[in-house]
Amino acid sequence: MNSKIKKDSKKRIFFDNASTTRIDDQVFKEMESYFRENYGNPSSLHDFGELAKSAVESARKKVANLIGASAEEIYFTSCGTESNNLALWGLARALKGKGNHIISSVIEHHSVLNPLKEMKKNGWNISLVPVDECGLINTKDIENEITDSTILISIMHANNEIGTIQKLKEISLIAKKNNIIFHSDGMATAGIIPVNVRELGIDAYSFSAQQLHGPKGVAALFIKKGTRIKPIFLGGTQEKGRRAGTENVPGIVGFGKACELAKIKMEDNIKYISKLRDNLINGIINKVKNVKLNGHTTDRLPGNVHISFKYIEGESILLMLNMEGIAAASGSSCTSQALKSSHVLNAIGLSPTMAQGSVLFSLGKYNTAEEVSRLLEVLPPIVKRLREMSPIYKE
Amino acid sequence: MNSKIKKDSKKRIFFDNASTTRIDDQVFKEMESYFRENYGNPSSLHDFGELAKSAVESARKKVANLIGASAEEIYFTSCGTESNNLALWGLARALKGKGNHIISSVIEHHSVLNPLKEMKKNGWNISLVPVDECGLINTKDIENEITDSTILISIMHANNEIGTIQKLKEISLIAKKNNIIFHSDGMATAGIIPVNVRELGIDAYSFSAQQLHGPKGVAALFIKKGTRIKPIFLGGTQEKGRRAGTENVPGIVGFGKACELAKIKMEDNIKYISKLRDNLINGIINKVKNVKLNGHTTDRLPGNVHISFKYIEGESILLMLNMEGIAAASGSSCTSQALKSSHVLNAIGLSPTMAQGSVLFSLGKYNTAEEVSRLLEVLPPIVKRLREMSPIYKE
Repeated sequence: MNSKIKKDSKKRIFFDNASTTRIDDQVFKEMESYFRENYGNPSSLHDFGELAKSAVESARKKVANLIGASAEEIYFTSCGTESNNLALWGLARALKGKGNHIISSVIEHHSVLNPLKEMKKNGWNISLVPVDECGLINTKDIENEITDSTILISIMHANNEIGTIQKLKEISLIAKKNNIIFHSDGMATAGIIPVNVRELGIDAYSFSAQQLHGPKGVAALFIKKGTRIKPIFLGGTQEKGRRAGTENVPGIVGFGKACELAKIKMEDNIKYISKLRDNLINGIINKVKNVKLNGHTTDRLPGNVHISFKYIEGESILLMLNMEGIAAASGSSCTSQALKSSHVLNAIGLSPTMAQGSVLFSLGKYNTAEEVSRLLEVLPPIVKRLREMSPIYKE
Repeated sequence: MNSKIKKDSKKRIFFDNASTTRIDDQVFKEMESYFRENYGNPSSLHDFGELAKSAVESARKKVANLIGASAEEIYFTSCGTESNNLALWGLARALKGKGNHIISSVIEHHSVLNPLKEMKKNGWNISLVPVDECGLINTKDIENEITDSTILISIMHANNEIGTIQKLKEISLIAKKNNIIFHSDGMATAGIIPVNVRELGIDAYSFSAQQLHGPKGVAALFIKKGTRIKPIFLGGTQEKGRRAGTENVPGIVGFGKACELAKIKMEDNIKYISKLRDNLINGIINKVKNVKLNGHTTDRLPGNVHISFKYIEGESILLMLNMEGIAAASGSSCTSQALKSSHVLNAIGLSPTMAQGSVLFSLGKYNTAEEVSRLLEVLPPIVKRLREMSPIYKE
């Protein structure tokens, strides 16, 4: 590790916005007083409690507003994983009397796939639809899996690795036609691209503060009014009994502010970040031979640059970039330390060696054109050096 | 509401430290850079990630140190409710092959009682032991409930309402003798009184940052090395697979600092807070007739003053105190908005009217002798006024 760079965070470059994001200064400022002065428990019957409660309710409105929901349809949780687990376990258990079949896809996040795996062991019937080489689901594949006992469809809005955006509206029409509840994991999309749960026809939607320049430790699950769901945590009466536990008041306040800012600035951010993304993609393709852009060319997250570098290991690129003070990722951060090959890259048919040679640069609103230029300066010689050391490299 | 007082939080008096606590300035300071600069995801393979990871691991040591555990035995969660739910569901599911009987007590927190209620519906056999009029469990009652299928005993360390501290050591000896896993809810005790899980002989212990001048949104479950437990959340590989989800890094850092401070200052705090408590208890008893101190006289939390005021409603006292800028509680904050009579007060045999007339003043390190004097000035005329309006009051 380069300890000089390590110490000066301002000089480090963060191209790993898919794993988490830097908190917005305005968000932090909004949270501060709820740590220091207004520290009441929202359930308490006094001014401290009331202030906390009204802050939570005001944040709930802002969070709801980001995705076109009503405040009463938003339930706060502690992280995206909790939101996805609550959606799957909670909806499936509530619908148990109706059937035991759930449809999802092979490229979902582990916080969807692993609960489904566990549910399979417990008697649920799980179908995972495939994706094409761009990571897109064919809605017909979902339709073909539907049986009389299908109670739930869970399809992510955009993939956290390759950035492909699914056609949720098409899927929701199929779900509605067949009277099936439709959940979507929106961790990579909420606050990044426009999301309107009414227009999309979604019944449940998971999203997280840390992905949209809010704090870690807080997320939400939208549950459409009238949709039955069983809680995971039991205890107090918080969140209308659907999520017991003292509310993370400063976190929720920060989440609210982050959603408000994301909504206001969305169009500008998309324009700004997409331009950086396209410059980075074009720059890499122009400067480095034997590379492949993964994911969809147009139905793609504004900040996603997922590239396979032939003949070399993505991990080695990451380590060398890190020495230059540049942070990027390979695969999902939640499993990156396990060094396993990505299930998403397998699903789009990438060969194991190309999958191993992949790097995800995920851009956000704090990245700049200078940072992209710096990466384009540093990356080609790194790839060259690694290829020269690679036993499988052929010019 | 008195909006003048409301605006100036410095002048408000917080005697509701059982519901939550004011964050220590040193804790907030320690967290700040993990919001703003070192915002990496601990699972990421770069300096941002590594910094976050090492901050989490350093906090884990401090949290473990508070209760005499090893760092590897600490699992971070999002709140006390999650810790208790994880302990009960997780331990019971892991031990399912051994038996289906769980022993707990009638005065546990709802985050223990409600999961047990749900487990009962799902085929588990639950025994709840009673308490005496001071809120103490007779260890013999636990021993008498043990059968061949008993797999788990869960008894809270101290009660959050009446402050009675249980004889955990006695209970753990019984548990050990019968080869039964022993969990304790330490939400009211960790950071407040000395806790050593080895000396107490405990296998699992739940505790929360917000109760010890740390932030909301983070808690822990101690699980003794070698104890099997099933996770609730499934997803990434965080917390050795026992709690998936991106870590709340700033929250965990704050929790660590709060534990460190609590440990260093524990003796001083206990001395200081107990003195305030005793002055408040004596002051109320001297100045107000027809009152009863609930809980144990000696085996009692340093900050707990739980009083029943005959002939009047605790809620009315709270409202009038709030007008004077003083925050107190009736019952558990997690259910206080439900205005139900407390199951704890029923359990110690208080009559419904005495239970309804109860107020909990919970003191902490930020309270002062002046605040206690102010309460002792304000409280007697409030009680007098309410009694004069009470139809059941007899001089």
